[in-house]
Amino acid sequence: MGYRIAIVGAGAIGGFYGARLQKAGNEVHFLLRSDYEHVAEKGLRVDSCQGDFILPHVHAHCSVETMPTCDLIIVGLKVTANGILPKVLPPLMKKDGVVLTLQNGMGADDQIARIVGSDRVMGGLCFICSNKVGPGYIRHLDFGSITLGDYAPNFGKSGMTPRLGKITALLRSAGLEIQPIEDLFLGRWRKLVWNIPYNGMSVIMDATTDVMVKNPALRILFRELMEEVAKGAAAYGREIPEAFIRQMIDYTDRMMPYATSMMLDYQRKHKMEVEAIYGEPLRLAADKGVAMPHIETMYRQLSFINSLR
Amino acid sequence: MGYRIAIVGAGAIGGFYGARLQKAGNEVHFLLRSDYEHVAEKGLRVDSCQGDFILPHVHAHCSVETMPTCDLIIVGLKVTANGILPKVLPPLMKKDGVVLTLQNGMGADDQIARIVGSDRVMGGLCFICSNKVGPGYIRHLDFGSITLGDYAPNFGKSGMTPRLGKITALLRSAGLEIQPIEDLFLGRWRKLVWNIPYNGMSVIMDATTDVMVKNPALRILFRELMEEVAKGAAAYGREIPEAFIRQMIDYTDRMMPYATSMMLDYQRKHKMEVEAIYGEPLRLAADKGVAMPHIETMYRQLSFINSLR
Repeated sequence: MGYRIAIVGAGAIGGFYGARLQKAGNEVHFLLRSDYEHVAEKGLRVDSCQGDFILPHVHAHCSVETMPTCDLIIVGLKVTANGILPKVLPPLMKKDGVVLTLQNGMGADDQIARIVGSDRVMGGLCFICSNKVGPGYIRHLDFGSITLGDYAPNFGKSGMTPRLGKITALLRSAGLEIQPIEDLFLGRWRKLVWNIPYNGMSVIMDATTDVMVKNPALRILFRELMEEVAKGAAAYGREIPEAFIRQMIDYTDRMMPYATSMMLDYQRKHKMEVEAIYGEPLRLAADKGVAMPHIETMYRQLSFINSLR
Repeated sequence: MGYRIAIVGAGAIGGFYGARLQKAGNEVHFLLRSDYEHVAEKGLRVDSCQGDFILPHVHAHCSVETMPTCDLIIVGLKVTANGILPKVLPPLMKKDGVVLTLQNGMGADDQIARIVGSDRVMGGLCFICSNKVGPGYIRHLDFGSITLGDYAPNFGKSGMTPRLGKITALLRSAGLEIQPIEDLFLGRWRKLVWNIPYNGMSVIMDATTDVMVKNPALRILFRELMEEVAKGAAAYGREIPEAFIRQMIDYTDRMMPYATSMMLDYQRKHKMEVEAIYGEPLRLAADKGVAMPHIETMYRQLSFINSLR
């Protein structure tokens, strides 16, 4: 039997995964803001490196009031928009429903757990290049896998829960590459090893990754930033091995010129996700008495840039 | 009896002080590069908040070979041009002549001491807003005082030497405000308390001081940067009191919108003095086992920006 799924924030991330889930035969309801009229009339279009497709008819909603309760609620908003969640999430929850946040950085899991209960939250880390290029129109350029974990409160580790198995199977049945993990919190720290150095620096230096990684001074700084992330993780008993840091450096060296998601926000004059990617990890580390001064410098600089948006 | 003075680097700084010294009756020889022909023909023009004046005739030189030996050689070059000093300085030195560097940051004193001997070096920290606005044409906007000290090798303290008294008197006789100090090395650290936070950050953030000091995040960072400078100084037994840090913050809060000298270099696509203001202090502190990670972050970022010049 099919799942009933809600997508909150149908942009580059939520729109892509929601469309794939509907294409695979699930009942998907999209909560939309600016794109509502367009999508209600014309559906969704996805140009994808894994095959283009159009969904001429989708369940489009401009308010949570018209939406049914769902088994799975996928949050694809920018974290800067999470202020709407206390109103949006509760009415969408079926008994035993679960919220899957596909959001960046630290803090969204806890925020959502406070709204729907800590036993109703999962988190996914998306490794994907996709953009919303027009109303209801998503361009998926590369990758697409999700590292998926179940939430545990107090920075705990959920292990491989039955629910994690079920949601993994659901997403895989839509042809998606899913990597289930035992420890979502560790997964988030690991993702920060990439996001912290490259996302913010691309904005501060107004440069793409390929230009930055050729500079010896920034290479030193990138490694120092990664090592600070590892120190932050270690304060919570999570190990990020040196080999993983080296792997992230090598991976970025081989990447095509890439405008990070923060760079795109910056160029579009949107607020950047500075608190989730920098502020929250800094506060977590500080709670354990660990300073991350290189990261903190970037945090202050990005906060200044954000204040001018 | 008058001093014979050479000016090496007759830009915003060397041009201004050299012109004032000539106006006061001293024999001044200017070593020029791009402005040589203009100045040889038309002299120097100084528009100054302390009174405009023109020097129709000056001793202009395009090579050190035509210059006489001098009692006082004032170096007003950007430190990025110091590569010429080993050729330029020795032929200019009279017996008992002295080199006064008016350059920014750390390292110029030692560099010059290696060329002319450690007993022949003085340093001056200029608190001045002046720009070269055309060939042989300097605009002096505000301030103009020099904090003047005698050099002592191995990060020592010279005290109030007789020579310091003489050069103070010479410069004062040209109507300049001179503050003689016992400890040039401490003076340099103190100047960095302002230069390190505001110079580089104005370039990285592409903002003037008045905009930056209104931002709470950058205010925290500025103070942290200043405290790191104080830690660096402390590693060499120099105390920078908290009251001085507070004074620099208050002073900057009250300043008019100000494009720092590094900002001007950046806008003119010149190389910035990143090594003297950031790299050298970092190396000095590291030699004593002291890390300055906030400063180091800026250093890497500025090195990247400099590499694109």
